[in-house]
Parts: sequence; structure tokens; C-alpha cells
Amino acid sequence: MSEFELLRGIYAANAALLARHGTRVVIPPGDDMAQIHLERSELLIAVDQMIEGRHFRSGTPMELVGRKAVARNISDIAAMAGRPLACVAAVALPQGMASGAIETLYDAVRAAAELFDCPLVGGDTGSSASAAAPLVISVTVVAGLPAGVPRAITRGGAKIGDGVFVTGRLGGSFGADGLGRHLTFAPRVEESVALARMLGDRLHAMIDLSDGLGRDAGHLAAASGVAMRLDAGKVPANDGCTWRNALGDGEDYELCFTAEGPVPSEVAGLAIARVGEVIAADSSRPRVSLVTDEGEFDVTTLGWEHGR
Amino acid sequence: MSEFELLRGIYAANAALLARHGTRVVIPPGDDMAQIHLERSELLIAVDQMIEGRHFRSGTPMELVGRKAVARNISDIAAMAGRPLACVAAVALPQGMASGAIETLYDAVRAAAELFDCPLVGGDTGSSASAAAPLVISVTVVAGLPAGVPRAITRGGAKIGDGVFVTGRLGGSFGADGLGRHLTFAPRVEESVALARMLGDRLHAMIDLSDGLGRDAGHLAAASGVAMRLDAGKVPANDGCTWRNALGDGEDYELCFTAEGPVPSEVAGLAIARVGEVIAADSSRPRVSLVTDEGEFDVTTLGWEHGR
Repeated sequence: MSEFELLRGIYAANAALLARHGTRVVIPPGDDMAQIHLERSELLIAVDQMIEGRHFRSGTPMELVGRKAVARNISDIAAMAGRPLACVAAVALPQGMASGAIETLYDAVRAAAELFDCPLVGGDTGSSASAAAPLVISVTVVAGLPAGVPRAITRGGAKIGDGVFVTGRLGGSFGADGLGRHLTFAPRVEESVALARMLGDRLHAMIDLSDGLGRDAGHLAAASGVAMRLDAGKVPANDGCTWRNALGDGEDYELCFTAEGPVPSEVAGLAIARVGEVIAADSSRPRVSLVTDEGEFDVTTLGWEHGR
Repeated sequence: MSEFELLRGIYAANAALLARHGTRVVIPPGDDMAQIHLERSELLIAVDQMIEGRHFRSGTPMELVGRKAVARNISDIAAMAGRPLACVAAVALPQGMASGAIETLYDAVRAAAELFDCPLVGGDTGSSASAAAPLVISVTVVAGLPAGVPRAITRGGAKIGDGVFVTGRLGGSFGADGLGRHLTFAPRVEESVALARMLGDRLHAMIDLSDGLGRDAGHLAAASGVAMRLDAGKVPANDGCTWRNALGDGEDYELCFTAEGPVPSEVAGLAIARVGEVIAADSSRPRVSLVTDEGEFDVTTLGWEHGR
């Protein structure tokens, strides 16, 4: 299947895309660039890729691969309290990949983009010279800030005395078969926007949990120039998960944030747990520690470093 | 080299990036998303990828690979009469790629992004599970419309009676050694903006020449619902190139546009040639034909289909 044949599938969906997003998508896919109309002057942008054999196992259904490639980018939007505008995708195919599987992948990317209100407005597909090459999918998302959210929430605003909070439950995202919630999670866009509106200036810093709470809390703390102490007994773990799973398995795609003052126990139906507090950074102690019955541990090196 | 070590190199460049682009780049790389400030409500977006063994040969210097990965996206911006705002890059590395080569590649992407005034504001790097995996680089660019350019120039506006024009000279972009101008070209951003300002509403349609004039003129004609007749004697070929080279070699990254009325013979020092005219589409004739001494040929199937 050639690039042009694949792109034809994208263009064929343009009528539906324009019917749904016509005020947002001014120039649909098929030209040198797509054009988006923005309501505000802030634009958020990020890219994330999935590499076969690294971010998903060979043999994972293409429906789930395509969905995850979009969903993990949408989770980055949630981490900033942004709202999706559009996405573009580049796919490097192993030579000779079956056209049915390619179409399934593309349909899944498009369907996920629609599901998360982030229409696919451009793509590039190419085939590697080798049939043994991994499938590589990179998705770039652009987002805006919704009404009532005055600024994007970065990793850098945590203040000493803040509570540290997480949404949902953590751990066990990867099943023994390589499947599991890491392929099917719902990014927390609505919850994040609701939090930002509700807490206003008291919402200081936020990140989505992709590497695992230990490592990602470490990113928040380092960007903010603070430290954190977490309480193992307060970390909401999924059934069958220890605190090591909850902090280290990764790919939960829940939100971790710090805030000053009271925070409700749920937002948009999703539970919020206070798991610790922001304290002063001190070179003699870990950036993020976890207090357990057996002592206090450095948890910033738990979790999954995706680039390995 | 892990993802975090690589990203550290990006973040270390943030001070320089903010010093140069601080009013445009509000949140620099290092958070879940970067934030860009926009002057206008139109946003252009496109993605393009380079796959080793397909878009560049193994052994091509990483300086040139990184430059081209950015430059061909900038050429898409030129094709719309846009002006670069920012870019993000995703890189899938073969396992065990030497860290020196990786750094050279990243430095080249950053340097090209700065050269073309399109700062790199985000990245994702990952390593494939196999050392034999191809290097894959995808770059997404976002762009705005500069003052004096009321709208993006699409492929779809060509009108019967328009002249068909190209900038510069065509053909021979690929040397026998795999090197050549396809790695070192200058995207025609300034020339394109100057044309759009100068010609105003008379500039009807535009594309950048990546696949080759035959095929790309075909894209213009098809998107506009018209046909084109080109004159072989008027196509500006590089030294040593036949019209087949000029129309079919591809990767010239010059501009092809259609306009009504007089067009100057150069813009910003770059030659413009009138190579043909827009005529009515007719199912009995080719979408784009070339008149030569030996007859009239269908040239829409010349050129390079990148997705092969």
C-alpha cells in the first residue's frame, strides 16, 4: 500500500471531519499543511512516539496500538489543564505490513482522535526498507486552554506546604500478556479542566503519571525545586497491587498534582487521594521519599524510564 | 544513552532558546507540553518523517539528516505562504547507536530549527529493540500567517487561464553518492511570503516541489479540478539535467504556483519561470502534460512516490 493510497483514506474522512469540526479545522488534511482556527493566543504542543517492541509488544492488536498512540498524547494535554485542538501522526511501517493491519491502525488512530475531540488533520506514512523494522508511530497534539482556565499548569509551581494528590488508582497497568489498562485508559482531560477551574490559583503543579508515581513525582519536585514525602498507606493502589506496583509500574495516566488548601475527594466522579506533602528540598534527603511501615525509601528511581 | 540524558541536552539549550524566542515560547521544553504565544488565530500544522534507507541512505552524515528532517517541513510552511512558529521532533534510534552520533543528530535538528526561525520546543526519543532497526525522525511544524498575507495558499485555487510558475531550477537533487541538494536546500519561506504579499489575490494555488514537478503539478491540478499544459523548453533545469530529470527527480523544494496576470521574473533574488498554463480538465487528456519537440506526454506519473 502506497502513501497516496493510505492518505486517500484520510481524505475520504474529511467530509465527516469538517462536518464535526468545521469551525475549528479551516483547511483539512490533503494540502501541504492543515489549518486550525484558535480561540485564544495560547497554543500547547507535544509529541510522543510508540515503538514496537518498546512501548507495545509485537502482536498487540492494531486497534489498541492506534488508540494508545493518541491517548498518551491526550494525557499530556490533561497534565497541562489544556483542551485538545488537533493532532497529526507519522507512521513508519515495516516493509510488507499487511494492508488490512495498516487500515486497522489508521482507523484506530482516527477513531481515538475523534473520541478525544482531537481530530487528525495530517499524517505522513512511509515504509521501512526492512520487514524486520519495528512499527513506529509518532503523534503530535496541539491544544488550547478552555474558558475558565487562565494558564497552563506546569510541573514547576509546587510550593512547600502543598498537598500532593493523585486521581484514580495506580499500578498493574501492564498485564502478563502485554495487554492491560496501559492500552485502554481514559485520559483525564475533563477532570483536569474541572480541577483547574475549581481550585484556581491554588492548583500549583501537575503531571500525568506515565513513568510511575515515584519517578513522576520526582519530575514535579525537581522542576519546582522542592521535595516530597509520600505516605504508602495513602497511595490508592489497584486490586492486587503493592505500593511498589502503585509507584513503579507506570503508565497509569492518572493525574498527580500539588495544591494549597482543601481539595475535594473527587472530581467529575473520579476519586482524588491526598498521598503526601511538599517539603523543602535538602541535599541530605531524597527528592521524593515514601514512608512505609518498614521505613522511609527513596522512590524517585522507581518507575519506568521509557527511553531505555 | 537514555531518554532523560538526551532531553537534558534539549533543556540545557532552553536559556538560549528563551533568550531568542522568549515572547513566542512561553513554556519551554521540559514540561508535559510546550506553550507558544500566537499573534493571529490561524494555525498551520504538518508532520513529515524521514526513514533511514528510504529518505536517506545509511551512512549519510547525521548533520545532514538532522538538517533535512527540519528543512523539508519548513518547505511545507513555504508552500502555504506561512511563517514558522515552532517544531517538535520524535526520534526512534536503532539500539546501541553511538551517543556521539545521537548528539550530532540532535544538535543538527536544533541548529536547523534555529536557522529557519522555528525553535525546537519538544521532543521524544526512544530506542528500538533491534540494532538493525532504521533510524526514524518525525518532525511536526506549526506556523502562522505573517502580516500582509491574508490567507494560506492551498493547492486548490488554480483557475483556468492562470500561468504555472516555478522558482529556481529543477532536477539532479540526488547525487550518485546519495548526497546532494536534497540534503542542503534552502526552503523558500521568505520568497513565498514575498510572493503572497506582492501578488495578493492573484496568487491562486501553491505547492512545494518534493515529489517532482510532474507529480506535484498533478496534485495542484487535481486539488483545483483543472488540468495543466507545461512547456519542456521553459522548465528551468539544473546543469546536466534533462526535462525528465527536472520533472521527475524530485526533492527540489522549490515552489510551484499558479497566478493570474503578470508575475515578476524574480522574487527576493530567486528566479521565477513561467512553465505552462492552467487549462480545463478533460477526461480525454492527462491531468498534467508536457509539450516537447517529440510530442505531448503525460507527466503526472513521473516523480517519486515517497511512500513506496
